[in-house]
Amino acid sequence: MMLFYSPIHGFIHKVLVVAHEAGLWDKLEFVPVYPVKDGYSISAINPLHKVPTLVLDDYTVLYGSQTIVEYLDDNSVSGKKLYPNNKQTRWDALRRLALADTVFEVTVIMALERLQSPPRDTVFSWNWAKVVRSVDQMEEDLKINFKDFDIGHASTLHALSYLDRQTKRGLHKSIPEDWDWRDGRPNLHKWFSEAIKRPSVTSHFNKEYVGDDTAEFCQKKIAEVLKFQGRSAPEKFTSHSVDFVPPGD
Amino acid sequence: MMLFYSPIHGFIHKVLVVAHEAGLWDKLEFVPVYPVKDGYSISAINPLHKVPTLVLDDYTVLYGSQTIVEYLDDNSVSGKKLYPNNKQTRWDALRRLALADTVFEVTVIMALERLQSPPRDTVFSWNWAKVVRSVDQMEEDLKINFKDFDIGHASTLHALSYLDRQTKRGLHKSIPEDWDWRDGRPNLHKWFSEAIKRPSVTSHFNKEYVGDDTAEFCQKKIAEVLKFQGRSAPEKFTSHSVDFVPPGD
Repeated sequence: MMLFYSPIHGFIHKVLVVAHEAGLWDKLEFVPVYPVKDGYSISAINPLHKVPTLVLDDYTVLYGSQTIVEYLDDNSVSGKKLYPNNKQTRWDALRRLALADTVFEVTVIMALERLQSPPRDTVFSWNWAKVVRSVDQMEEDLKINFKDFDIGHASTLHALSYLDRQTKRGLHKSIPEDWDWRDGRPNLHKWFSEAIKRPSVTSHFNKEYVGDDTAEFCQKKIAEVLKFQGRSAPEKFTSHSVDFVPPGD
Repeated sequence: MMLFYSPIHGFIHKVLVVAHEAGLWDKLEFVPVYPVKDGYSISAINPLHKVPTLVLDDYTVLYGSQTIVEYLDDNSVSGKKLYPNNKQTRWDALRRLALADTVFEVTVIMALERLQSPPRDTVFSWNWAKVVRSVDQMEEDLKINFKDFDIGHASTLHALSYLDRQTKRGLHKSIPEDWDWRDGRPNLHKWFSEAIKRPSVTSHFNKEYVGDDTAEFCQKKIAEVLKFQGRSAPEKFTSHSVDFVPPGD
């Protein structure tokens, strides 16, 4: 399988954690995509031009991070399953998945807004309140669900590590410089400190990508997918500097 | 069950269609929420302050539209299931769900940007290209999957009807005034024309909400949930004019 993904340092990709937990790490060919840079458009195989995008061995293309993680988990060869079989547990895991995915999304929105001149203050007031309430909810959730590691936890890891990365950079003047989601949330802090030691996290957390991350490589892999789908590759690399999307969904 | 949702005319809520297809329409108590108006904050029960939010009969709160629709479908009493049992069909349905949900999301982003002064042109160029490619993909997908009605179709309906609503209002000067996703996409056009005749759509499509849609009613229902969770209701209605979220996720 090919995984078109963002190798940017400091992201914990939910999909990478799930792939590793499922024992599928070695079956993945990683194709780095830098959606904001010219030449990396993957829109020929995914109209949304978003990562992650997963190409199966029969060249079926899957997108939507929630589609991809469920697919990987369903095809687990490790014996581990992050989607609970018990229905009640499953709905709770999916709720926490939605919670964390949205924390990630709104943090991306604020990180992008920071780059605008001038940034709109309301973007931060709207979204920051959500982040604070959501990490409070995560603290509550961790009080009663500490032992298992499910898809909700994989997403929580992803969201919190990205939140770390962005709050340390300083998001906005309205957000205290020394704000840390760990403060006053001992369960969440303890859980996160343990969770990042999992092999599925250390496999990539704080590691630089090693390999070919050029636009040429990315487009070569896309051409391979299109060929097997009986379609032609684009004649030349398209510039997508105006087709920016956050590197994740 | 209580469904906190947006009753705004012209939205086809994926979750409403799924609830109806599942035969659960009559089991739902609808609680209208206008997230942009003061007094309608539902953050006491959903830290994301987003609709849809579903409260089960045991007062478990579910959020994330994909969590909610899967829950409703799993509890179908109609005999119909929108999540395919066959795995290959399921992944394709989830892919189309992700496609349509993202079309909806980026259309919401553009609709909100239109209200800014001045709107940022790049928001439209970034997102509009995605919309056009995605409706092209929907046309392709409909060529081979016309008969069944699955969760991907429910989301496609939702996205296209919202896109209709917003393009007819005029999104931006860069988007042709007479643009219509139907043009040049005969399969999608034909499918949509049939699909909106389904009882699950006519149940609410283009109908005004009838009932109590005041902030007081919304807060009364929230207090009921909190009481059963053993928590206190907020002392007064909080103004959330700076806590705006798009009415849907």
